[in-house]
Order: sequence, then structure tokens, then C-alpha cells
Amino acid sequence: MRRTDGTSERYVVGVDYGTLSGRALVVRVRDGAEVGTAMREYRSGVLESVLPDGGPALPPDWALQDPEDYRDVLRHAVPAALADAGVDPSQVIGIGTDFTACTVLPTLADGTPLCELPELRHRPHAWVKLWKHHAAQPYADRINALAHARRESWVGRYGGRISAEWQFAKGLQILEEDPEVYRRAERFIEAADWIVWQLCGDETRNVCTAGYKGIRQDGRYPSADYLGQLNPGFADFVTKLDGPLLPLGGRAGALSARAAAWTGLPEGVAVAVGNVDAHVTAAAAQALEPGRLVAIMGTSTCHVVNGTRPAEVPGMCGVVDGGISSGAWGYEAGQSGVGDIFAWFVRHAAPAGTDSHERLTELAAAQPVGAHGLVALDWWNGNRSVLVNHDLSGLIVGLTLATRPPDIYRALLESTAFGTRMIIEAFVDAGVPVTDLVVAGGLTSNRLLMQIYADVTNRPLGIIGSAQGPALGSAIHAAVAAGAYPTIHEASAAMGRVDEGVYQPNPDNVRTYDALYAEYRALHDHFGRGATDTMLRLRAIRNAAVRTTAATTDTILEVLR
Amino acid sequence: MRRTDGTSERYVVGVDYGTLSGRALVVRVRDGAEVGTAMREYRSGVLESVLPDGGPALPPDWALQDPEDYRDVLRHAVPAALADAGVDPSQVIGIGTDFTACTVLPTLADGTPLCELPELRHRPHAWVKLWKHHAAQPYADRINALAHARRESWVGRYGGRISAEWQFAKGLQILEEDPEVYRRAERFIEAADWIVWQLCGDETRNVCTAGYKGIRQDGRYPSADYLGQLNPGFADFVTKLDGPLLPLGGRAGALSARAAAWTGLPEGVAVAVGNVDAHVTAAAAQALEPGRLVAIMGTSTCHVVNGTRPAEVPGMCGVVDGGISSGAWGYEAGQSGVGDIFAWFVRHAAPAGTDSHERLTELAAAQPVGAHGLVALDWWNGNRSVLVNHDLSGLIVGLTLATRPPDIYRALLESTAFGTRMIIEAFVDAGVPVTDLVVAGGLTSNRLLMQIYADVTNRPLGIIGSAQGPALGSAIHAAVAAGAYPTIHEASAAMGRVDEGVYQPNPDNVRTYDALYAEYRALHDHFGRGATDTMLRLRAIRNAAVRTTAATTDTILEVLR
Repeated sequence: MRRTDGTSERYVVGVDYGTLSGRALVVRVRDGAEVGTAMREYRSGVLESVLPDGGPALPPDWALQDPEDYRDVLRHAVPAALADAGVDPSQVIGIGTDFTACTVLPTLADGTPLCELPELRHRPHAWVKLWKHHAAQPYADRINALAHARRESWVGRYGGRISAEWQFAKGLQILEEDPEVYRRAERFIEAADWIVWQLCGDETRNVCTAGYKGIRQDGRYPSADYLGQLNPGFADFVTKLDGPLLPLGGRAGALSARAAAWTGLPEGVAVAVGNVDAHVTAAAAQALEPGRLVAIMGTSTCHVVNGTRPAEVPGMCGVVDGGISSGAWGYEAGQSGVGDIFAWFVRHAAPAGTDSHERLTELAAAQPVGAHGLVALDWWNGNRSVLVNHDLSGLIVGLTLATRPPDIYRALLESTAFGTRMIIEAFVDAGVPVTDLVVAGGLTSNRLLMQIYADVTNRPLGIIGSAQGPALGSAIHAAVAAGAYPTIHEASAAMGRVDEGVYQPNPDNVRTYDALYAEYRALHDHFGRGATDTMLRLRAIRNAAVRTTAATTDTILEVLR
Repeated sequence: MRRTDGTSERYVVGVDYGTLSGRALVVRVRDGAEVGTAMREYRSGVLESVLPDGGPALPPDWALQDPEDYRDVLRHAVPAALADAGVDPSQVIGIGTDFTACTVLPTLADGTPLCELPELRHRPHAWVKLWKHHAAQPYADRINALAHARRESWVGRYGGRISAEWQFAKGLQILEEDPEVYRRAERFIEAADWIVWQLCGDETRNVCTAGYKGIRQDGRYPSADYLGQLNPGFADFVTKLDGPLLPLGGRAGALSARAAAWTGLPEGVAVAVGNVDAHVTAAAAQALEPGRLVAIMGTSTCHVVNGTRPAEVPGMCGVVDGGISSGAWGYEAGQSGVGDIFAWFVRHAAPAGTDSHERLTELAAAQPVGAHGLVALDWWNGNRSVLVNHDLSGLIVGLTLATRPPDIYRALLESTAFGTRMIIEAFVDAGVPVTDLVVAGGLTSNRLLMQIYADVTNRPLGIIGSAQGPALGSAIHAAVAAGAYPTIHEASAAMGRVDEGVYQPNPDNVRTYDALYAEYRALHDHFGRGATDTMLRLRAIRNAAVRTTAATTDTILEVLR
């Protein structure tokens, strides 16, 4: 897909910041054609055990990143993508970005990350906290307990529960574990917004992360009174967050001379407002109409769907006005383990000879629905929606001496589909329609998995027409920011791609899956809704058994304080 | 251990008939020293798909054997064991045997198996039905339903449920599926008694199988009235079973000239009454005192324990007066999957690199109790005691992305120990004390497994001092039959061997296992006692999904009728 019609074409660049790497995509404004791409791995990857310069071991559940790795993507992946496209930089009219979230960092008032100050470089809390930094759980627990005790109205917009991954839990952790870093942090900002700041030199905030990850609802953040009750020093937290709030697809500013030098793009081109990987994908998949649920399926799954009205959906990640596109209420839900579970099975539970996704899928596809006699609960990595409990765990029932690896593999594929159906039913029960599914992400290549999702949800299933959904979505936002299209909807219609209804529910399969789903649902409620706390007690027993490790952790935390 | 003191020593021969082979052991009468052994595999093994001469495929769940294979053990293994011992046959004073049970065959009045009649050789029902022939389940269901409807008192002696493996279910299956074979069967006899008939020429019946497998209680079998209500043609069934009933350790007769020629033993030496592999092992393990539970642990586990009084223990296999040794009430229970589950894991669920029992055990032994965070229900092959339901299935809960193969392997080892504890508690709750355990069988070599059993049951655990427990037990019975000892107790004291209290409960482990067992018990009751029928419904869904296979089966049964 090289350019075909000379130099009059206009292009945009979308940059997708993932967990381990960043990817740049050059896209033709006229029709969304993807003309060049390049990827840059983060040098430091995910910092889970030690900081780049050494020092004491990080405690369990920590996950940090180095912001310099984000700049490196601009320096290397963008020019390489331009070269791959054979596009003259002068034809590029804008750049858009999307990021993992909630990935946040403390900075000075000018955007300098605290971890880049020599005197703070050895302090873990000065670094970027990646979305999967889970060590703030105790703080999230306090945030939730106090919110419910005070009947704070905003907590209902988050399914009743603020996640340990989000801004307030991570911020409170910094305050209480390293008060000096908290004090020095003049700004506390999503990486999604920080990279935009790096590109255009202006600090902006996007409504998406402010809403989903920052508890901004109906024009305001939680009150200083509430925050002060969590910790008097936390009352001012919102002053570190607040900033010019812009809608998705808005223009954050013009590309600075410095960023132009990094990227090879012309100074002054439009820089789109920051955004989140899952949410930009809805535009790339032409899935902005209310009722069309986008499932971005990779190691985990993120679900986003537009609705016409705000509703409180129990166990959802959140609902945000304009959180996916302006003019609609964007709903988000998620499953914390999907492809990760399949990969676990292949790596740790499949014997030699069947230890590949291809072989297992082939064998699993050959069996009739229900023939394995198994049902699994897909909680290998906890439950993000609807139960919102990371201490829940996986379960398989129905095992016999005749059970073979493809049986279990298929049951695991199905369990994640049942999990998606639980989420869909929670939306529908709360009055948020879900009419069909559009799937994006790496797992779309597994045809068996896709058919299972169509059969289990009894809904037609479309597939995004791009292998680079998030980067294409960012490019679409760049096109709007540059004024090439008036709205995201129009840009999505012109530049997005979806293969509609590729998978249709098979009525026979639907009937059998209804029976299996009834078993899944009964197990889900028995183990997840308090009829038994077996899973929580097993977790507590496990934690007590490995308490030697915990003692070490305490020592490390002591050192950090 | 060759003879050391000349030709004045006396010896006995024990022959253990297993599922795939028979083993002969030459044992010194004075002290039980094992001086020679030999094994003979059955030429036809287990007939599960087709008869030896060909013909149509056998239906699922069938398991037959060829009685000629049993004679071959006498012809080959006994002389070979004598040769291995270097013992002069004239020093042998008796022979004893034990068998799998319930393994039964139809014969003429002279003991000729019906499958050896040319005109019946092609009829599957004319052959030996091995213990694990499970195709009689529908007949067992009718036997139980009618017994409870009529409030037959004997059913309480079997934990409330007659097994599909036992004589009456297998006999009724023959009657209804091949009436001619049923009519031609002048005798219907345990292989345990049939082999004794082959040795001495006299038909006898032992109290052990008559009680546990034949529903003989308080001196009588079920009434003709009851049997006739099952099927009018079944009213005479007991006439095919009844015979001279002899106690264990009794003398069935003298070795015939024919059997002397087969074995190389002197004509006229004592032949002990027939017996069962698990039950003779109690004598070999010096475990005849009430309260000492013997667990014979291999692919499955059989538990036997003497009690001083009869008690109705819910879900037990049975209680029989003199069923283990005269003068005590012998209790039997069982777990239908133990080593089979571990083998399943190694073969079908362990990745390359950890797919051996040795490696998995080594890694599992290194972790603290409870550190894996898992509990499993050990029902991969159904539940024989306490729930007595072969449609139950296996379950694992607590799985996470951090779960590794040794974690699951250890949880499976533990699940079978929890199953044994359930059985022990059922005994104790019914007033049958269990003070300690003695373990026999192939799994005794796994030291981790043995320690887990001591810790989970919180009881000292002894190990049988012989690798040939059943054959040694049969030799002990031969010594009593030959008059060398007055009772099994005295012979067991002189000739049996046990290493007492090899494994002692570790108090820390006991405490953690109490917590894990509470979870096991809650899962056991939830899934096994009717709170949910998830497992039964999954089985029904599975059976419906594979109903094409079932249709084929119906055709085969049609052909057989």
C-alpha cells in the first residue's frame, strides 16, 4: 500500500504506546490506508524488580517505566515509519497518540519527570507507575471504603469500585510511602497526556483518562473534604491533576521544534489530545454507534461501548461523558485475563506434542460443543468486571481421566466468552443495549475463538479491518485534530475499517452454550458473590504460607519510607 | 534371601491375580521371608474392544478376561517362582490365592467356563467380567431403586448402594442381554473361587466376596421374591451362587493331580479358600487389629479396616462378618482414582521438562503447605466412597497465572489424601474407630505423598514391609490352611511385616491442612451432596454431545441381544 497518486495526498501519524513497545503508523487521510509502520521496544521494558541504575529490589506487584523510553519511540519509530511509507514528511498534517492507562507519573510544573532529577532518580516513587502496578491495592481499599461510607455519588459511575490501578490509589500510595516525592510532584499526569505535552509543549488533559482513571464526573473531581479525610496531605491532590480539559479528537497544540526534530515531522502540525489504546480502537473499528461493543482482545480484554444515557452498571470500570467520542456516554469494562490464560495453558499445562495454540485449536475445533464436559471460571488473573476482585482465582470442573489437553484448552476459550457474556448481560440489565460485537486485537486470528464468542453471546461478530487498531485509531484522531474531518464519527467512517458480521451465531451451538453458560453463571455467583469465600481463603492461606517473602517486602517498604 | 538352613524349612506359595498379570511368591513359613518370585502377564490382558477370536466391537465400558490366562499363571509363574527360590517343591505345604473382585464368570456345574464351550465362545456374556466392567450400571440402578423401595435391610450394609461392579448387577445384565448364556450358566462364580476350584477340584465360596460382592448378609442372600421383582427370570439367581461357604484362611481342599502337574507342587498339599487382593494385604501388613486402616494405594485405593461391631457407615463399600479375618467385622471403602489421577496429570497435563513423577514430586516437596493456593476434588474417576457416584468429576480451584505444574501435582496428591480423610471421618462418625494407617501398594515409594497422608489425616502412618503385599498375604492364608498356624492372626504376626509409624504428622502441616480440608469438605458437599448438580449436568451435556457414539453403541447392543 504505497502511495499511488503523487504528492498531493495528506497523511497522519498514529503512535500506539503499549506495555513493552511503541508503534508508529502512517495513514492516508483520504481513506485510512496504512502506508508505513515501525516499532520501537522500550529499552527498560517494565521495571518490576529493580530501577535502571540498580538499588534495592522493588517490592512485589510493582511495575514502573522510564519516560525516556516514550521519547525514544518518537525519535526512532516515527522516522522509521515515514521511511517505510516513502511519504514526504511535508505531506503529514498531524500526529495522534494513544497510551496504556492508567499509566501515570509525577512531574515538575514544566513536565520534567521527577525520576529525571538526579536527586530523585533512586526513588522508586519518582518513576512512571505502569497500569499494572498493583501495589496500591490497600490504598484503593481505603478509597472505596470511605467513598461508600460517605455515599459519594461518583462511585456508582465506576460500578461501585475504584481500581488500585487508577490515579487516586497510585497518588495516595506516593503520599504515604514517599511524602517528599509527593511534595515535589507539581503535576501528576497520565502518560497519555504527558507524551502530548512532550510533542507540543502545552499541558493538556483528555476527558477520557480524566473520567475513567481520574474520577472526574459531572465537571468535578472528588472534594477536598473527602480527600482530606483519606489523609490531610491528600486534600490538595486535585491541584496536581487539574488542567485544560479537552475532548477526544481535539487539537492539543502544534508540534514543537524539539518534537519536530525528534520525529522528522514538520514543526507546527496538529497534535491530537491524548487518548487510551482501547478507546481509540472504537473509531478504528467504525464502532461508535451506541450498542456496538468493541472488545479489544489480547492478553486481557477491554470492552468499550457507547450509550445514549448515563447508567450505573454494577461492576463496570466506568462510564464517562464523551469518554469514547463526543456526544455519547462511553462505557468501559474488562477481563483481566484472556490471552494470558491461553498462553499459561500452552506454556505450563500442555504436554509435549500439543503445546502450541495452533495444534490445540485444531484439535479443539474438531469436537462438538459440550463434548468435553468441562466448565471453567476465567479468573486466573482475578476478575475486573463484573465482580471487581483480584483475589478471585481460576476454576475447572468436569475433569476426568479421559480429559485431554484440547478439551481444557477449549473450555478456557469458552470461559472467557462466558465472562464477556456476563459483562454484556450486566450492561443490558442496566439499560445499556448491546446489539453486536466488533473484535480487535491479536486474538482475532483464532477463528475457533471468534465463533465461540458469536455462539456464546448469540450476537453477530465483526472483526476490525486493521492489524494496528490502536495506531489507526490515533491516526483518525490526528486527522480530526488537523481539521481534515469535522468529527471523529466522520473520520471513523472514512478511515476506519470493519468486516461486518464475519461470525454468525450457530443456533445449535447457541442452545448448548446456553446450558453451559447456566453452569458458568451458577459457579460465578457461588464463588464470586459471597456464597462461599473459598477462593479468598485459599489466597489468604497461600499468602500466609509464603509469609517469609512478605517479611522481605515489609523490609523493602521500610527502606522506601 | 535364599534358604540358609537346609531342607527342613517349610514353604508356602502365594499367588496374586491382578488386572494384567499374576504373580507367584514363595514364602518361608517360619518367618515370612520371601525367597522367590515370578510374574506372568495375561496373554489377552483386558478385553475391552474385541474378543480374542474377533467378532463385533465390544460396547463402551465393557471389560472381559480369558480364564485360560489364570491357569497360565499356575503353569508358568508358580514353577518359575519355585526355581527362583531354589526351593525343593516337597518343602511346600500349601498354596493360597487372591484375586481382583468382583471378577466373575458363568460356568457349567463342573466349573467349565461358558466361554470355553465352542458354541458360546463368540458370545461376550460367556466370558469373565472383570471388576472394572462398568456396563452394568443401569442394572445396578434398578437393584438399588427396588432395594430402597422395598426397604431391604441388607442395603445399609453397603453404604446404601450396590455397585455396578458387583455380582448381582453383572448377573442381571447377562440375564437381560443374553438370556441363553444366563440359562446355560449352572454356576456364577467369583474368579477368586473359580481358581481355587481349578486347584483342588472342589467348588467352594469364600465369605469375603460372598459378603462384599455377593450381598450375603446374616447368613442369606437377597430373597427370591426381591429378585423375581427385578425380573422373573432372576428369581433363581442365588441357586447359581450358593455353595459351601468357608472362612478366610480355611482349607478349600487338596491340590489335585492336574494342578500339581501345572504348578510342580506336590499333589495333596493344602489349597486355601479364595480371597481378595486388598483383604489379604491386611494380614501381610500385620494390620488386623480393629482401628488399623490398611490403604492399598495404586491406580485406585482400597481401604480395609476391622471393627468389633457391625455399623452402617454411609457410603462405604460394605461391612462383612469375617470379611477380612474371622472374629471381626471387616469394613471396606475405596477411592476410584488415585495413582490414575497422578498418571493422568503427568501424561496429559504436564509440560515437557516436568512430565515425570520424580521431577514433579521433587519440586512439589520444596514448597510450604498451602503455598500453591489450590484445592482439588479427586473425582477424575468418579467417587466410590463416601458419595458413591461415578458421574461426579474432578475440580481444581485457585488457579492463577502463577500456578505451575508442581503446584497442581501437589494439589492432586493432597486431594486424594483429603478423600481418604473423608472416608476415615465417615467411619469414625459411625462409631468405627480409625487409630492409624498402614499403607501398601506401589504409591508407598512416594515419600512426599506418604507425609501428606500422615499430615492430612493427623495419624501415624506405617508402611507394609513387603513389595508383594497381596502375594505375601495369600501365602499367610496358605500357611493357615496347611495348619502351620492356628489362625490368620498368629500367621500374620509371624509372617507379616510392617514398618510402624514411618511417617508422623507434623503439627504445623496438620494445622494448615485442617484449613485446606475445610475447603475440600465444603466443595465436596456442595458438588457431591446435591447443593448443585453441576457435575451431573455437565456429564449429561457431554453424553448428549457425543450421542452419535451412543447410537453406535445401541446398534452393537442390538447385535448382542
